[in-house]
Amino acid sequence: MLNITELNTNDSDFWSKLQDLLAWESVSDDAVFNTVNGILKDVRKHGDAAVVEYTNRFDRMSVGSMAELEIPAARLQEALTKITPEQRIALEQAAARLKSYAQRQIMDSWSYTEADGTLLGQQVTALDRVGLYVPGGKAAYPSSVLMNAVPAKVAGVPELIMVVPTPDGEVNELVLAAAAISNVDRVFAIGGAQAVAALAYGTATVPQVDKVVGPGNIYVATAKRMVYGTVGIDMIAGPSEILVICDGKTNPDWIAMDLFSQAEHDEDAQSILVCPDADFIEQVKASINRLVEEMPRKTIISTSLQSRGVLIHVQDMAEAVKVANYIAPEHLELSVENPRDMATQIRHAGAIFMGRYTAEAVGDYCAGPNHVLPTSRTARFSSPLGVYDFQKRSSLIDCSADGASTLGKIASVLARGEGLIAHARSAEYRIKD
Amino acid sequence: MLNITELNTNDSDFWSKLQDLLAWESVSDDAVFNTVNGILKDVRKHGDAAVVEYTNRFDRMSVGSMAELEIPAARLQEALTKITPEQRIALEQAAARLKSYAQRQIMDSWSYTEADGTLLGQQVTALDRVGLYVPGGKAAYPSSVLMNAVPAKVAGVPELIMVVPTPDGEVNELVLAAAAISNVDRVFAIGGAQAVAALAYGTATVPQVDKVVGPGNIYVATAKRMVYGTVGIDMIAGPSEILVICDGKTNPDWIAMDLFSQAEHDEDAQSILVCPDADFIEQVKASINRLVEEMPRKTIISTSLQSRGVLIHVQDMAEAVKVANYIAPEHLELSVENPRDMATQIRHAGAIFMGRYTAEAVGDYCAGPNHVLPTSRTARFSSPLGVYDFQKRSSLIDCSADGASTLGKIASVLARGEGLIAHARSAEYRIKD
Repeated sequence: MLNITELNTNDSDFWSKLQDLLAWESVSDDAVFNTVNGILKDVRKHGDAAVVEYTNRFDRMSVGSMAELEIPAARLQEALTKITPEQRIALEQAAARLKSYAQRQIMDSWSYTEADGTLLGQQVTALDRVGLYVPGGKAAYPSSVLMNAVPAKVAGVPELIMVVPTPDGEVNELVLAAAAISNVDRVFAIGGAQAVAALAYGTATVPQVDKVVGPGNIYVATAKRMVYGTVGIDMIAGPSEILVICDGKTNPDWIAMDLFSQAEHDEDAQSILVCPDADFIEQVKASINRLVEEMPRKTIISTSLQSRGVLIHVQDMAEAVKVANYIAPEHLELSVENPRDMATQIRHAGAIFMGRYTAEAVGDYCAGPNHVLPTSRTARFSSPLGVYDFQKRSSLIDCSADGASTLGKIASVLARGEGLIAHARSAEYRIKD
Repeated sequence: MLNITELNTNDSDFWSKLQDLLAWESVSDDAVFNTVNGILKDVRKHGDAAVVEYTNRFDRMSVGSMAELEIPAARLQEALTKITPEQRIALEQAAARLKSYAQRQIMDSWSYTEADGTLLGQQVTALDRVGLYVPGGKAAYPSSVLMNAVPAKVAGVPELIMVVPTPDGEVNELVLAAAAISNVDRVFAIGGAQAVAALAYGTATVPQVDKVVGPGNIYVATAKRMVYGTVGIDMIAGPSEILVICDGKTNPDWIAMDLFSQAEHDEDAQSILVCPDADFIEQVKASINRLVEEMPRKTIISTSLQSRGVLIHVQDMAEAVKVANYIAPEHLELSVENPRDMATQIRHAGAIFMGRYTAEAVGDYCAGPNHVLPTSRTARFSSPLGVYDFQKRSSLIDCSADGASTLGKIASVLARGEGLIAHARSAEYRIKD
């Protein structure tokens, strides 16, 4: 019997207990910081040579030059023939659906002209070059390649550089196939902080990018945090989370498996069930205890559920919404009768999965929206990865002579109010006599 | 005669010299870091009491409680009567223009339904509560209040909490008036790292916000960087910059004053002129040396121009565009014959000021677009502050029974390919037999 925390909103200490259970601080300790700092400086100074050395050391490779670490386009195409036809079709279908959704996110430039001829607007451009980090080894997820590469390409990023470590020379064919399908431009078989550094600073072989996206371990996350400013980054993700609101009328096995689908990611993942029906919560517990035995990742799931999982008994659905809005979960499943009505009351969530048929897992792979989502309550102020992250805006201002005169007078008053006389004079030159 | 660096794109070391001149790393040294870290921990632990203590100490105040540090709404309204009618009108006109521009940035929710009844979309919501930092003392800029508050309110943020230190009890009437005009909800007379901490963690009196925006000194910037994750932040701005591309046919006095309008901000500000006409560059130099004598901030302007200013002689306008795209300036002035054509070739800039009549200074106050812009080459990957920064998106997925079955099959193949069996099973439950 798994021992999963249960809370009741009627408990007087409910909110403080909930707060404690949600608390998550990702700490890179001094050792990690110093290691990463050393690698960044080394790659910045020695370029390719440093990257080759770290790769040979950490990934147990024995290459003589950076060029040997580039995975050529032909090899990506070859990967498409090494996976099963079923896998290839699934990747292609997922990519097509992601693209179709992403296309609706494209921001266009706009401008408008005022009565005096002054034009205002904003010009939208794609980033020039983006780096995509993909973890190697067992945690290599082809779905991550699609989720990051597709919106970048839909945004119009001309050059997308992927890095993926190949420890012991082992490549993941699904990852390379996903790169081929999503039109990644170049791939290097490097990883860790050295790969982030190569992308952020550029080397003779690895082109410098403008933004680094994609998930990674603590070294990668620390490196991304440290190069932020030199390049853009997507986000520093915390452990994955799901919150399921269920009215008690969904098959409890489905709900148990939905909770597992986050818990199996890692021991720190958080799965929460919110339900007004105490009997149903007991049924889900029974399902959890029965089904967990069938799970290849039983140990991870058990640890995650027992250390961070929560079963919350609420008094009614309004309270369920209140709890969800407080938690601002990465994934929110509304396994209820009228999920679309309920969704309009949700103020904070990375993605909202509505209805009993919508498993969170379809969002991880192929529904269309991105699976890169804000974690650790950051959905209060941030959003899913999207085309937006690969475009940027420049404001446009073109004053007519009349407009310059009118605006110059306002600017002059305010600039003088702030004691900025050069600002004032610069504006005043354009005021008509 | 000011000694301003001159470069020519024909010089063999032009790009490396330019790179050196652009280099900027904002370093918070260990002393600053430790001070801020101590303040954050203290405020997190002791709340109001710590904020009051730091405020009394740093701002030379002597209040007994946090409540005394709240500036009531009536006091904001009173400020409107203490500024000149001309100033009030200028603030109101600026706010109206900012609002009109910001309204065009509002993101709306959307969704679409596929043939099998599956709904996909994204739901856009405003942030619940935002904190706006406004520097106090002499560098208190009412324009900053408008630039941050107006887009937040247009986005629909219900509660906007402003903090502004009042050293020695001295308030800036223009700042309070700007807060009144832009419908700031509450104002506290606190500043520094303690104000950022109060907003990020909340105290008994200061409500916890979801995002902290606004400029500040190194302590404020360091505090913002440290609370990032707990709350969102806008950006960590570097020194202000302007790049003026001129074809040599604008009044050189105007160009000189435009360069001054950045240089007067602070010694680290950067003003760059790019021009294909060597004679005109000489004329601008003459204007600079003559006009700088008239400037109240002559010392700051001189230091800035001599340490970070650059006059760049390019061979033609195509090269001017290339230089601008490399620099990705915060402010880009196109003082040329056909600025709109040239603007289409600009890939990276915070804001583009087109034509001889468009002084950068009007953009600082009242043109409409935001004056909070990406600095230090970050326009390669980031954008002006806007309504976007105060809204967020939640992805929407509602699978029909048919859609769940179709998507479940794709998800199952990919999840099994990644070794995530709970994901696969969760999707497979929804596949029709």
